[in-house]
Amino acid sequence: MGFLDELRNTVAGVSTSPADLAAAARDRSGASPDGLPLAVVRAAAVDGVQDTLRLANEHGVPVVPRGAGTGLAGGALAGRGTVVLDLSLLNRIVEIDPDDELAVVEPGVITAALDRAAQEYGLRYAPDPASAEISTIGGNIASNAGGMRCVKYGVTREAVLGLDVVLADGRLINTGRRTVKGVSGLDLTALFVGSEGTLGVVVGAALRLRPLPERTLTAAAAYDDVEAAARACSELARARREPSLLELLDGATLGVIDRAQGSDFAARGQALVIAQADGPAAEEEIAAIADVLGKQATWSERGVDPESSERLLFARRRALPSIERFGRALIEDICVPRSRLADAFRGVERIARAHDVDIYTFAHAGDGNLHPIVAYDAGSPEPPAAVRRAGDDLFALALELGGTVTGEHGIGLLKRDWLAREVGPDVLGVHGAVKAALDPRGILNPGKGF
Amino acid sequence: MGFLDELRNTVAGVSTSPADLAAAARDRSGASPDGLPLAVVRAAAVDGVQDTLRLANEHGVPVVPRGAGTGLAGGALAGRGTVVLDLSLLNRIVEIDPDDELAVVEPGVITAALDRAAQEYGLRYAPDPASAEISTIGGNIASNAGGMRCVKYGVTREAVLGLDVVLADGRLINTGRRTVKGVSGLDLTALFVGSEGTLGVVVGAALRLRPLPERTLTAAAAYDDVEAAARACSELARARREPSLLELLDGATLGVIDRAQGSDFAARGQALVIAQADGPAAEEEIAAIADVLGKQATWSERGVDPESSERLLFARRRALPSIERFGRALIEDICVPRSRLADAFRGVERIARAHDVDIYTFAHAGDGNLHPIVAYDAGSPEPPAAVRRAGDDLFALALELGGTVTGEHGIGLLKRDWLAREVGPDVLGVHGAVKAALDPRGILNPGKGF
Repeated sequence: MGFLDELRNTVAGVSTSPADLAAAARDRSGASPDGLPLAVVRAAAVDGVQDTLRLANEHGVPVVPRGAGTGLAGGALAGRGTVVLDLSLLNRIVEIDPDDELAVVEPGVITAALDRAAQEYGLRYAPDPASAEISTIGGNIASNAGGMRCVKYGVTREAVLGLDVVLADGRLINTGRRTVKGVSGLDLTALFVGSEGTLGVVVGAALRLRPLPERTLTAAAAYDDVEAAARACSELARARREPSLLELLDGATLGVIDRAQGSDFAARGQALVIAQADGPAAEEEIAAIADVLGKQATWSERGVDPESSERLLFARRRALPSIERFGRALIEDICVPRSRLADAFRGVERIARAHDVDIYTFAHAGDGNLHPIVAYDAGSPEPPAAVRRAGDDLFALALELGGTVTGEHGIGLLKRDWLAREVGPDVLGVHGAVKAALDPRGILNPGKGF
Repeated sequence: MGFLDELRNTVAGVSTSPADLAAAARDRSGASPDGLPLAVVRAAAVDGVQDTLRLANEHGVPVVPRGAGTGLAGGALAGRGTVVLDLSLLNRIVEIDPDDELAVVEPGVITAALDRAAQEYGLRYAPDPASAEISTIGGNIASNAGGMRCVKYGVTREAVLGLDVVLADGRLINTGRRTVKGVSGLDLTALFVGSEGTLGVVVGAALRLRPLPERTLTAAAAYDDVEAAARACSELARARREPSLLELLDGATLGVIDRAQGSDFAARGQALVIAQADGPAAEEEIAAIADVLGKQATWSERGVDPESSERLLFARRRALPSIERFGRALIEDICVPRSRLADAFRGVERIARAHDVDIYTFAHAGDGNLHPIVAYDAGSPEPPAAVRRAGDDLFALALELGGTVTGEHGIGLLKRDWLAREVGPDVLGVHGAVKAALDPRGILNPGKGF
């Protein structure tokens, strides 16, 4: 019996309809797969995941795990001959334990849904990727997703206590624990987080929740240029202030927001910094932060309550939607040492001029993590050559400044060459050896990640 | 030419003097190695580490990496036929970067020395194992050390940005980065942290520093029994308070402190809770914490300044020295879900009675991490059978309560059987596969860890 027949006979939820295959082949990277997958399995239970992997491993068929398909680096692109393992139906919040401040969830849970469920207990799920309303916890774990709160609360890895993982041969293991601490054996939990589906398929997670802060307050300030804005962020660090959010938007981004939203941010300055403080000292902290930010500012404002504070975040929340209103966008994600933030912004402007492309840049400034968004025409099915070349120059810039080619989106398919340049052959060799140890037949998301 | 001759001809700092061998064979676990090592290499430079591993790998000679030898689980015990690779001379703080809030250090740096150096820049190294004055950063990384501040700031893993690691065959790789975030490839940094010298030898680390808090204030409260004390800690969590330190000492521990220090803690209650709050809201937070802790207390006090606050920590700081004043101690380290803290203390008391041994228990209560200290006679070179059996029952208790057999000390040599019981054969298989991938000849600290 062939693989597909055996799969259909064993696992529920197998589809080979052209529409399903076409939908499952792509993600939000904008890149095209080299053909259609063989089948899509919409797993409704863990044993379906186990059976799919066991059969695929026996037959040497590549498997592409998929959450909501919102990845930006091509990690869920599924080409010819692959089976897509769609985990979006495994979407139960199994447990929220308010005393131990943890949640046990299936991988298909939408990130923002978990956060809302936790709020009923005075808790929250801290990592908040911009995709929180559409991406899944499983996808967040696969790419070790970041977000705006990470500057204070850490990335996804810091929120994952333990995982249920189906190995390449279909065996189910549990890594980590329900305790906050523990050092029994290798940290397999951290190894699977960020591994982009190449080492195993996450089918359950114990996640750390955090107390919902009593208060969150915002301050914003505009500047003559990004360098002044970046300097203000550095001043904040030097003053040993620890905002719970610190974002920087450049003039191009402010302009496109104004154009799309009818706002007037660009009139206040050519760069905007938004900061938050939360917790019991939020008021004292935001006042101190606003003091530092206000010094060289052309405009500044401080939220006095939740409503005015949320309003000051408006520009940041509408940045990407505003850009996408006028065309397509290659969403990039480089990270540099925080002290090189101004150099990075300057470099991005140089790259935009050199390739004659529009780049809108905003940054998780507290982490040195920039998202340069390279715009292109809505009629173009894939990024044009100039856009791709600009992307390459952005990665080169990140490495030049002692940074990394991806802060929070992952390597996926699109950044593999750049990963090799970043880490070198010996580290790639270690990646390969670990991969071979866990997936000897190489069926798990081959050609992705490292 | 034999291995030892080749080693002597290639690497500086090789000793085979019986005194050096005897000193390098043991750590603070109290366990005895099965003989003397072949040689000790006190490496003074990274190439000495590389040459030692390359030669050992060629000859199939086991290598035991060693920092200060302060480990409590036997991770640095060096038996017959091994070479001890002593890294304590690699002890330079290479760089402190106050803008990026990071330090680059060699592995032999004493943990507290780094913390003090960081303080000159208004920063600190957050992980604070009780051994900070005698243990090295390299040892802390090998065991993913914890400490009292971890309840707020996380364990060693959260403080390590990147590592320089010499692989089993002598190649030097660099993992991670100097940026706060980054997801380029597998998280090898986290894989090496806590791997107890079994996957590679750490010869350098980029460590995250944190702003030194402006204020740190302490509150303490005594209770009728450990259950009331554990309940108070749970109340604190339920009130969504986040202390920067939360310690619980049982009546036995208070008694032995009084006996050794001439204090009168036991008169105040049969259990003591000590909490701290730090940062800009320290005053407001410690007041709220003291309110919760005070409710069912038989005694309570609140520090109003640094001096009175530090005084309230006295009992915790003198706990282990007080116990060791009257004999030897098996220092245990189990971790349970925070909500099971009272059950864990009750279980420990039951075990002490069952084996007729003295167990003094204090806990990082905020992490559910208990240190039951099983005392035995100073004349006994190794823990007597009843003490060892009590230890086994402590591990069984941890697993029964959904916890782990080690919160922060590691598996080393002493807990290997218990690790197998905790994680099961499939996870052990994954550990073994990863180990074989990185150290195919099995020369790195064999028989330790997983």
